Amino acid sequence: MRKLRNRQWLLKSRPAGQVATHNFGYHETEIDPNQIDDGNFLIENKAFLCAPTMRNWMDPPSKNLYPSISIGAPILAPAVGKVVESNNKQFPIGSRVSTLSSWQDYEQIDPSGRPVNFVAEGLSSVESIGKFGLNSLTGYFGLTKVGLPKAGETVVISAAAGATGSLAAQVAKIQGCRTIGIAGGREKCTWLSEEIRLDGVLDYKIDNLNDGFDHLCPNGIDVYFDNVGGEMLRTAVNHMAKFGRIILCGQISTYDSDQAASGPEDMMRLIYGSIRMEGFLTRNYTAEFPEAIKQLREWEKEGMLTLKEDIRDGFDNLPKSYLDLFTGQNRGTLVVNIRPD
Amino acid sequence: MRKLRNRQWLLKSRPAGQVATHNFGYHETEIDPNQIDDGNFLIENKAFLCAPTMRNWMDPPSKNLYPSISIGAPILAPAVGKVVESNNKQFPIGSRVSTLSSWQDYEQIDPSGRPVNFVAEGLSSVESIGKFGLNSLTGYFGLTKVGLPKAGETVVISAAAGATGSLAAQVAKIQGCRTIGIAGGREKCTWLSEEIRLDGVLDYKIDNLNDGFDHLCPNGIDVYFDNVGGEMLRTAVNHMAKFGRIILCGQISTYDSDQAASGPEDMMRLIYGSIRMEGFLTRNYTAEFPEAIKQLREWEKEGMLTLKEDIRDGFDNLPKSYLDLFTGQNRGTLVVNIRPD
Repeated sequence: MRKLRNRQWLLKSRPAGQVATHNFGYHETEIDPNQIDDGNFLIENKAFLCAPTMRNWMDPPSKNLYPSISIGAPILAPAVGKVVESNNKQFPIGSRVSTLSSWQDYEQIDPSGRPVNFVAEGLSSVESIGKFGLNSLTGYFGLTKVGLPKAGETVVISAAAGATGSLAAQVAKIQGCRTIGIAGGREKCTWLSEEIRLDGVLDYKIDNLNDGFDHLCPNGIDVYFDNVGGEMLRTAVNHMAKFGRIILCGQISTYDSDQAASGPEDMMRLIYGSIRMEGFLTRNYTAEFPEAIKQLREWEKEGMLTLKEDIRDGFDNLPKSYLDLFTGQNRGTLVVNIRPD
Repeated sequence: MRKLRNRQWLLKSRPAGQVATHNFGYHETEIDPNQIDDGNFLIENKAFLCAPTMRNWMDPPSKNLYPSISIGAPILAPAVGKVVESNNKQFPIGSRVSTLSSWQDYEQIDPSGRPVNFVAEGLSSVESIGKFGLNSLTGYFGLTKVGLPKAGETVVISAAAGATGSLAAQVAKIQGCRTIGIAGGREKCTWLSEEIRLDGVLDYKIDNLNDGFDHLCPNGIDVYFDNVGGEMLRTAVNHMAKFGRIILCGQISTYDSDQAASGPEDMMRLIYGSIRMEGFLTRNYTAEFPEAIKQLREWEKEGMLTLKEDIRDGFDNLPKSYLDLFTGQNRGTLVVNIRPD
């Protein structure tokens, strides 16, 4: 069988602080589709999700927290792909799967080493990784499994105009919570108040969050969905209600820097408030993805959910598209479609 | 009816950093036992628990986290007392109760405003506040309700030779956990390894905790019982196992200072480890106190629990006895008995 041309974007150098295009290097190789290890299969990547946390994976391995991409290796990324060769009967040729792949045309997958999900019937590849992909699932599982909101409670969502935050905010509303969103800039805030119809919106670029919480959450915050970390988290901690829950989802305020994401100023607040602060990974709930996707599709069909995708085209644009995440230039889940269905 | 002589220890000045005897002032008043508000009752205090967290109550009210004792008011303290006058049928004269009282002979209690528990049959007043009092209950509920340890898991207890820590450590062992204690000094560490028979002991005064955790918890810490906060907490966070739980019980490393108890250095560890960190107050479980006390008494009777009390005598000694908490001079739950049964 002929060899396959395999385009790649490699980690050329580790970002020192802000990630930039010069950290990525373009390369081409060839793949021999006959050399697939037992139990593995080969996918042709169709689309990549651009996720903020990938920035962490570009850091040196010393931190030992998350996968660290080796210098010269393709950029790890959540992806959807089609099985084109297989030595695993569970994943026959032609199946469509979402999994952790990398920025190249082809990737050999060992399904014993990472979660692999089949794309649900009726979803396009882009939808499976965009609207109904990891960002939305992260908002869904974080809010429902970690936050455990009850109807009538006050839920505050940071980065509420983002893909994860806006999903979490909408699910909180569906569950009957008073829902306050924090976002940056008039366009995002207007969208949150007028289209998503949140009960309150704070613009962190102009509003004083301390005063804002006093005003919008006079009885405290029952559930805080933390996508941001840093000062915003520390301010929220000071406004948590008794028995409040802080969902630790991301700390984007520090990803694109060399700073660690430090925690609360005074742990006594957590003790005296009986506050729970809990980190999670969406992959903890892999077995429940199909059911969650079904629920989200139903809500979207009924007009109860607005899911925003920002679809870019072309393998060549991967680094540039990815960088838009950190300058707020994306409008919803950022997906790079490299091979349309 | 004659008036009652009422000795008091008042908060004379707020501690600037370390609490000292000059922060307390002795005073005497008279109590009119006929002036009891509807629904209230008057207790004669019999014994006081000296608890580290009382130090926080001596701070100014601005922190808004815990009760703040007013300058000139008697020192708030958990106590056991006997009802000597009552305008509440639920608390007849002669009942023995444990509640939040203060450093004086008599205290009028409004049971709608604070938890009040009856002393269990067969317990002395000192036992009800010492061996089977708040310190032990804190260890019990923190470990079992917040830590949720499973048999075979690795549990690390800070301040493990203290009243709360040693109870938590022993319950962890009863529940089948590998239990590691951290304490300061040879005497405490020997007691933990030889009498309490923990699976491992670290002496924070001489051991490097980072190396110690590497050695004693090679698969990470599943449950960390945090009585100390500060650097010890930050080191433990770096060694937590996936799905680990941190029980935020106290932050004694910072109580006797003007420093706040700051949190983890890198919240990403909590996210990537799916770590839960949860504060609690023992009074959240007030309704379950009788059952817990019954369980602890059974375990003690069966020789499965060693409960240490350090009983001091005399109202006059209250400030001096209390200060021993912060210099490690107490040996077990510190109770000041002012009026023997």
